[in-house]
Amino acid sequence: MKSRGYQAWLTEERWKNTARIETVRPLLGVVSASVNPEQAVGAAAIEEMVNGITSFTGIHPDVTVTSGPALMVIGAKEKAESVVQELNMYTLKEEGYVIRSSRGQSSPFVVLFGGSEKGLLYAVFHFLRLLGTEAELENLNIAQTPRNALRMINQWDNMDGSVERGYSGGSIFYRENRVLLESSRIRDYARLLASVGINAIAVNNVNVHHEETRLITDAYLPDVAKLADLFGRYGIRLFLSVNYAAPMELGDLSTADPLDEGVQQWWRDKASEIYRRIPDFGGFLVKADSENRPGPFTYGRDHADGANMLADALAHWGGLVLWRCFVYDCHQDWRDRQMDRARAAYDHFRPLDGRFRDNVILQIKNGPMDFQVREPVSPLFGAMEHTNQMMEFQIAQEYTGQQRDVCFLVSQWKQAMDFDTCLKGPGSTVKRIASGELHSYRYSGVTGVSNIGDDDNWTGHPLAQANLYGFGRLAWDPDLTAEEIASEWSKLTFTSEGRVAAMVTELLLESYSVYESYTAPLGVGWMVQPHYHYAVDVDGYEYSKWGTYHFADCYGIGVDRTISTGTGYTSQYAPVNRERYESLEKCPDELVLFFHHVPYTHVLHSGKTVIQHIYDTHFEGVERVEAWVHRWQELKNEVDSERYEQIAERLGWQENNAKQWRDVINTYFYRKSGISDARGRRIY
Amino acid sequence: MKSRGYQAWLTEERWKNTARIETVRPLLGVVSASVNPEQAVGAAAIEEMVNGITSFTGIHPDVTVTSGPALMVIGAKEKAESVVQELNMYTLKEEGYVIRSSRGQSSPFVVLFGGSEKGLLYAVFHFLRLLGTEAELENLNIAQTPRNALRMINQWDNMDGSVERGYSGGSIFYRENRVLLESSRIRDYARLLASVGINAIAVNNVNVHHEETRLITDAYLPDVAKLADLFGRYGIRLFLSVNYAAPMELGDLSTADPLDEGVQQWWRDKASEIYRRIPDFGGFLVKADSENRPGPFTYGRDHADGANMLADALAHWGGLVLWRCFVYDCHQDWRDRQMDRARAAYDHFRPLDGRFRDNVILQIKNGPMDFQVREPVSPLFGAMEHTNQMMEFQIAQEYTGQQRDVCFLVSQWKQAMDFDTCLKGPGSTVKRIASGELHSYRYSGVTGVSNIGDDDNWTGHPLAQANLYGFGRLAWDPDLTAEEIASEWSKLTFTSEGRVAAMVTELLLESYSVYESYTAPLGVGWMVQPHYHYAVDVDGYEYSKWGTYHFADCYGIGVDRTISTGTGYTSQYAPVNRERYESLEKCPDELVLFFHHVPYTHVLHSGKTVIQHIYDTHFEGVERVEAWVHRWQELKNEVDSERYEQIAERLGWQENNAKQWRDVINTYFYRKSGISDARGRRIY
Repeated sequence: MKSRGYQAWLTEERWKNTARIETVRPLLGVVSASVNPEQAVGAAAIEEMVNGITSFTGIHPDVTVTSGPALMVIGAKEKAESVVQELNMYTLKEEGYVIRSSRGQSSPFVVLFGGSEKGLLYAVFHFLRLLGTEAELENLNIAQTPRNALRMINQWDNMDGSVERGYSGGSIFYRENRVLLESSRIRDYARLLASVGINAIAVNNVNVHHEETRLITDAYLPDVAKLADLFGRYGIRLFLSVNYAAPMELGDLSTADPLDEGVQQWWRDKASEIYRRIPDFGGFLVKADSENRPGPFTYGRDHADGANMLADALAHWGGLVLWRCFVYDCHQDWRDRQMDRARAAYDHFRPLDGRFRDNVILQIKNGPMDFQVREPVSPLFGAMEHTNQMMEFQIAQEYTGQQRDVCFLVSQWKQAMDFDTCLKGPGSTVKRIASGELHSYRYSGVTGVSNIGDDDNWTGHPLAQANLYGFGRLAWDPDLTAEEIASEWSKLTFTSEGRVAAMVTELLLESYSVYESYTAPLGVGWMVQPHYHYAVDVDGYEYSKWGTYHFADCYGIGVDRTISTGTGYTSQYAPVNRERYESLEKCPDELVLFFHHVPYTHVLHSGKTVIQHIYDTHFEGVERVEAWVHRWQELKNEVDSERYEQIAERLGWQENNAKQWRDVINTYFYRKSGISDARGRRIY
Repeated sequence: MKSRGYQAWLTEERWKNTARIETVRPLLGVVSASVNPEQAVGAAAIEEMVNGITSFTGIHPDVTVTSGPALMVIGAKEKAESVVQELNMYTLKEEGYVIRSSRGQSSPFVVLFGGSEKGLLYAVFHFLRLLGTEAELENLNIAQTPRNALRMINQWDNMDGSVERGYSGGSIFYRENRVLLESSRIRDYARLLASVGINAIAVNNVNVHHEETRLITDAYLPDVAKLADLFGRYGIRLFLSVNYAAPMELGDLSTADPLDEGVQQWWRDKASEIYRRIPDFGGFLVKADSENRPGPFTYGRDHADGANMLADALAHWGGLVLWRCFVYDCHQDWRDRQMDRARAAYDHFRPLDGRFRDNVILQIKNGPMDFQVREPVSPLFGAMEHTNQMMEFQIAQEYTGQQRDVCFLVSQWKQAMDFDTCLKGPGSTVKRIASGELHSYRYSGVTGVSNIGDDDNWTGHPLAQANLYGFGRLAWDPDLTAEEIASEWSKLTFTSEGRVAAMVTELLLESYSVYESYTAPLGVGWMVQPHYHYAVDVDGYEYSKWGTYHFADCYGIGVDRTISTGTGYTSQYAPVNRERYESLEKCPDELVLFFHHVPYTHVLHSGKTVIQHIYDTHFEGVERVEAWVHRWQELKNEVDSERYEQIAERLGWQENNAKQWRDVINTYFYRKSGISDARGRRIY
């Protein structure tokens, strides 16, 4: 029996409203499907529909399957005929779908029509969401197609069973250098991903260590092929992270120079070998010349040389190269205030625009630093008109509470997606770049670093499931609001009855601002314990090689990234944004310390001084978490005890964490500035 | 062939002066020994003498061994007869010895006379030191007896092969839960220890984990017995660290309450079992109720209850309980400035004076905190007239450079040994308490946490060998000066010819003050990276639970431990010291921040302000290390390349470390205080 935590939002709980079950019995008792029998995805779509109906209602529908275009009729097939005929005239995109239902007829029906079996699968999951939230099923007229072509997940799983930056147990994919093919978790994970529209996955850590380098060899390819099948059945294409030095590390060559013919041939052969076993293999994800990983720099080549060589090897098979742009000097001297890690990705890659093959996609983290709670959008995103790009988010809460603290990241991602780069005038939003609308990219989209592990409930904190759900939904449709996503997830995961879902939604929607309020202030970032990245340590990274500083002294704080007096980072933005960030007057409060070094007495747009803002937000942050603790206690009898207790325990942890942040941050800045809290609250 | 690093100070190098070899040939060609054949130590003494003579000179002496009192005559036995007869009239203490030699006679001789075979072994090593430093051998009239009865080493080795706070490789004792009996290293380590007079060793970490708990069971006792034999042959008694919860963890009982009869019986049985296998077993070393280790507190008992129960179990066999006093609250709230970890040992133990059995020895760290570069002497030491005590030093350089930076700790230990507690009026020095002179303790002495591992040269840094050597020599005779010890070690370890030994001696003698100069200032301590304890992190422990704070703000720094306005820690000292530490005017500069919170502008006895002292010492510290680097380069052709390169490399590391400390400390305090360096040097 799966626990409620394990089921996640694909709940298998029977509706409590038995009257409603009787009402829908005529509709849900019959399923007539037509699919291409050669597409395993079609069978998955039918299976999900049947199991979903049975779970919610106890009804075991009669199922008929024929060969034909991807289509499913629930209920009265003959009544649906005219709708089916009309829909057959349309050409849908491969992943698109339409759902239409009858209008109050005595013989109700629902038609699900897919642009392909994948589209049909997405339609089924959409319909199951309607069942799960006990929505009305009449008068449906839904047409959906995903905005982003690539909606991808990156697993940072290692073959020893660990997960880099994993906060929910070990890997579900590997243990002691074995692929856990016997585990039903991998299939269940594929279902979860497909249900929110994910269509690609890289199944190993971007830091490719010794054993993982061998994933592209005979030793592991048969297992990788089985993984690819598992995911393929749910419309998810499999990618591997590769080691740029593989031709050497696997002992075949003495160089990995991308311009070396032997190296090129080695990768071509490797590609053939992989595609012979995995015809729909997605391609390679590459972290090269970054944080001590090997790459083309060793051979005096640049990133375009490096990526294109791999792209050429994959091109024949339709494979892609996802080339990460997280490239910076990780041996920086903190004494040098002109050096600026934030500049690095743009400085490295912007000059290469136009030089990449069209099956290369540059994968760019949402911010210029590294998944901080608050950063501006990376200026590189959209700045290369002739180079495919996709945006990388981190669903794993490395710097955002590590799945001990609640932090609903959809709020953050929405801000990034809606950011107007102004690169082609107003309206040049990130979501229009990711979707390939602004620059007509051949390939683009969004990718997210997974937050799941082998904890029974996948994500450690039950509420962290909302981030995985939200990532998929937002990747599908970036115009969805955080409110819509939070509410949808809460109803599916808990119940649409009672006050739990509403309370959970509220909590989720508050959580990003709450987490920000008690951590590093005003966009300056970091202030976390080195390596661990959870608890507070204001100076933890201040005198280190990592390029992550706040420069607080007894007068003020912040990083001067202006053109006029600082590192010049603001020059990487289009004029409107450049001017906004360059100007202390115009710079938004939440990023003021990211762009400017200001006195503690500087007055923000909010009317508060910087120091008073620090004090106020840190006191408020704790108060808000305390309020959560009490509100959650009110729901004790309305949530299953398993999840009630897990959440209650973690809210307690969060309260402690928030208090430590509050007291350390406030004490640090009080001791440093000598300025008292205007409200005389306790600072140590 | 042993490397020079492996040989350490028991060098096997032939004298270069071949003329001298011919001169001593008549003397060293004959060895006549009498020993008790039942004492393995006697055989070891003879073996060491013979091998030593052969190593230095190539002479293979004729050896005669008879049964009798512990005695050795080198050279002309008949000529020595009158000396032997005279010596036979004396009663030496068991570990004492006399060395007498002829005065310019044509038939030279040397007589070594021991209070026992152990005394004879020490005499042999003394004589070998004379050979090793090519000292004159005529007119010797040496009488030695150790000042401290217990001269002990604590290994913090774990059975998985790791060493807690080990900086020179893995354990020489264990690997993967096996005792490495087949290794000759253990015997060679015993030789090194005996050669400087060590007579006891605890062979496992005071933090006794799961596997080590089983050392006192059938699973490991046969191996432990073999270890005891190995060390016993060199006069070293073997102790084990035990887990206070062993009766429970070994699965026998449901409690470890020291007043429980079943528990008492369990330990009595355990003692019998151990002594049946190891008749000269030393006893138990116990870390209880400290840093999350189990202990009597769990059962509402105190440390006397806890220690006495074990003491009673061992008493019949002559075993000892070494009970560590490193007991404090390791979950302190940094917000509470009245709570003071420095007070803990005294507050816990002082009230228990007189309640401990006379085979219990309280083992007290030299300072009240934890082996910092600079601390006052623990006020508990000597404050319990009716309770045996011994002082614990740390030879391993946990907080003092981790055997990457040179730090000759004899300088520090000398200061502790010479500290006058004034507990019984002037002259109540620590060394007179450790030796049992001041309070007539039945057992007392000094113990040191080992700095060796399975690195070829034992200690990682070749110069760190001097600390192990120095610890033994100082434990034997606390009146030796740091200069004498450093010079002796340098000559033995390098050569007494040329300028190397002089340069090494100079470097060693400077090193403690150099290391202090670029690390935490004026006795405040810490400022290291949490857990690792090497590199600088000023606030690393400032907001933690460990009770280790500096309280720096924009006005000043330091911990107020006075009675009048602070934590009252100074009250734990005898009146003279109490008044000295309590008074800001009288408090020695080097401890001013340990005892007082002062403004950065406070003027020290040196005439400098605190802030200027910080800047000056940190600039000077780096300059002095830079000078070492250059001075060492001058010796390139005078030291074997193995050790030359090792030392050169480590001096480079030390230079980098010192620079990082300098710049971080100076920048931290400049940013915090806003006060510029009076000499306008570069601060960031």
